[in-house]
Amino acid sequence: MTQQGLFLTFEGIDGSGKSTQARMLADHLRNTGHEVVLTREPGGSPGAEEIRNLVLQGDPDRWSAETELLLFTAARRDHLERTIEPALAEGKVVICDRFADSTRMYQGLSRGNLRAAVDQLHTLMIGREPDMTLLIDMDPDTGLSRAKGRQGVEERFEDFGPDLQRRMRAGFLDLAKEFPKRFRVIDGNRDVDSVAQDVTDIVGTSLR
Amino acid sequence: MTQQGLFLTFEGIDGSGKSTQARMLADHLRNTGHEVVLTREPGGSPGAEEIRNLVLQGDPDRWSAETELLLFTAARRDHLERTIEPALAEGKVVICDRFADSTRMYQGLSRGNLRAAVDQLHTLMIGREPDMTLLIDMDPDTGLSRAKGRQGVEERFEDFGPDLQRRMRAGFLDLAKEFPKRFRVIDGNRDVDSVAQDVTDIVGTSLR
Repeated sequence: MTQQGLFLTFEGIDGSGKSTQARMLADHLRNTGHEVVLTREPGGSPGAEEIRNLVLQGDPDRWSAETELLLFTAARRDHLERTIEPALAEGKVVICDRFADSTRMYQGLSRGNLRAAVDQLHTLMIGREPDMTLLIDMDPDTGLSRAKGRQGVEERFEDFGPDLQRRMRAGFLDLAKEFPKRFRVIDGNRDVDSVAQDVTDIVGTSLR
Repeated sequence: MTQQGLFLTFEGIDGSGKSTQARMLADHLRNTGHEVVLTREPGGSPGAEEIRNLVLQGDPDRWSAETELLLFTAARRDHLERTIEPALAEGKVVICDRFADSTRMYQGLSRGNLRAAVDQLHTLMIGREPDMTLLIDMDPDTGLSRAKGRQGVEERFEDFGPDLQRRMRAGFLDLAKEFPKRFRVIDGNRDVDSVAQDVTDIVGTSLR
């Protein structure tokens, strides 16, 4: 009698508002009677959070791009096994703030040129793709100034400057073209409620 | 003018005496004028040691075989980049207590049946094989009782009992047949000095 759940991911550059939108969608779906697991990467399970801390703390150069890719893949495997797959098996909606597409961008594009290795590792050790990926598309300069208004361990990724933000934005849009069936691109350059309404409308069509 | 160094690994079941032999060989080579880096896995570089601690501490079931494999591969990548490759580039002899063959055995054979994934990950993210691998072959029951006389975080691997030790011993011998060019099998069921003499003789033929 179990029905497979729905696996939704949010992607976008830093400061795009995807975490806010993920939270708002989770609230909306809970209010309309759905069982929702809201999670995020890197992290999302106790083991994966420990790996996240290992990667993101300390000197930004202490791991090579390749080692970092392996650590993030280890974290994703744990997150998938312990959090995502069990929830989907129980028919829940899983909303994940960043998933493999972020690795395709950040390790595949910005740190070294590891996209081929990223894809092979994903096929070998992860396999799972989201049912739907919501890309919150955002002007790179606006995103950067928003992201800089925050603080935390993620600074090491956010502190790479406007050029990286522009390349990441273009890269995410390319990724949406590469996986047109699961990607939905949403204009994030609007007030938060308008963006949330778009998200709700789009996701609504996938829910019974 | 730089001459590529020599990369030697020791492998064998727990309690086979390989760590002792690795240390004795390092001492012997240093005494005969060689520059030697003695290292071990998992670990061998500051980052890899941190990953080692993350894997080996805590509940043995907290990582799946697949996640553990990814973590050990991340540790190996760091160890290779930070310790092994720089020393080889300087023409040194690198002696490593366990390397990828241990992963082929412990993650490939005993935890799940991951040998295919182990090999693909190795090709993708590591690539390097030792110039010579010294397998200290040891009666499994003797090895087990020796290993049990010690304590430490490695207990989680050593506490799998006599059946595992027998399978591991056979697995290592199979591996020696699979890679006959680099493997040398040494009878470890003798006094430590006789074993060390064999090791010295065999390695001596590879050194100028």
